[in-house]
Amino acid sequence: MTKVTVLLYGDFTALDAIGPLDVLGRLEGYEIHYASLSGGPVSGSSGLTVETEVLSAQGKSDILLIPGGFGTRKLSGDAHFLNALKKVIDESPLVMTVCTGSALAAACGALDGRHATGNKKAFDWTMSMGPKVRWERNARWTKDGKFYTAAGVSAGMDMALGFVTDRFGKGKALSLAESMEYRWNDKAEEGWCFLKVNGQ
Amino acid sequence: MTKVTVLLYGDFTALDAIGPLDVLGRLEGYEIHYASLSGGPVSGSSGLTVETEVLSAQGKSDILLIPGGFGTRKLSGDAHFLNALKKVIDESPLVMTVCTGSALAAACGALDGRHATGNKKAFDWTMSMGPKVRWERNARWTKDGKFYTAAGVSAGMDMALGFVTDRFGKGKALSLAESMEYRWNDKAEEGWCFLKVNGQ
Repeated sequence: MTKVTVLLYGDFTALDAIGPLDVLGRLEGYEIHYASLSGGPVSGSSGLTVETEVLSAQGKSDILLIPGGFGTRKLSGDAHFLNALKKVIDESPLVMTVCTGSALAAACGALDGRHATGNKKAFDWTMSMGPKVRWERNARWTKDGKFYTAAGVSAGMDMALGFVTDRFGKGKALSLAESMEYRWNDKAEEGWCFLKVNGQ
Repeated sequence: MTKVTVLLYGDFTALDAIGPLDVLGRLEGYEIHYASLSGGPVSGSSGLTVETEVLSAQGKSDILLIPGGFGTRKLSGDAHFLNALKKVIDESPLVMTVCTGSALAAACGALDGRHATGNKKAFDWTMSMGPKVRWERNARWTKDGKFYTAAGVSAGMDMALGFVTDRFGKGKALSLAESMEYRWNDKAEEGWCFLKVNGQ
């Protein structure tokens, strides 16, 4: 069994969490857990309220996922949260961040010296959370050691499929994407270019 | 206020619901409600458990969203569920279905005579749920009267952005997609061609 824990907090972006999770949840033997600092119901974007376990009580995870969301602004200055985050990141053999989730990982010091990326719309703020991080503004997602970091929504799912490629091979990632009828953009490195992609 | 209700049931596909909802939830004045036939917590794919209102008690909605999921197989033969579904579809001025959610709308007779599409992997089964539906096997999403129907995960989000275009113009849809860093495929009509899209 591979245990995946997503760390939720008030005002997380629902799709930043559910996108990658719906990829990982399709892998045989992967089990998804929803956790938060205090446990109980946590509300994100789109009115989604999810029941969560208490982070410190749920044991170690194989993969930790940190989604983005407007709630990161408040948490980035919350020492109690950042200490708990640093501890669980240190304990996790693999960590994924999406969007401004990267800012939280940076703010607790976990990304120091690592290549990382994040939401393009909030990139300057995200960078300010970790002056020692090797930020990659043009990347869609990055992998550096145990850290996968992604830009926005699409990139989060694409990163999760990139992880599937790294662990199980590209055939498995293609087959998962097909089962979801999801058009995987497997280019981690290219700049995010919405208008060009849509031919406009 | 525009009220959007997503109808959940056991073993729904999380991303079929959250994908379109995270588009609609970004529209000013759009409020998302989670409902199910009996109310209470409902669990979908990826271990996601969502608290829901009782469908019949929550009043009329402006938009009804019906996601797909493995749970549709059981529900497609559940007369009590299908009667309730037909009633709420009849009351809703706009209805969106994703994936095998189209099979449920078909099974209750609501799509009779309408153009519609659904999950490509389960298309024959979906078609069998509504012999009088004008099924479009190659469409990514369709619009016929008050019904928007979509194929898989990506198509559900693309359909939601198609709705935004119909109601607010293409500029709004492009701006929403950009804010989500989502690569919108705005082609409703083309066949779903994963391998070609990825250049493989």
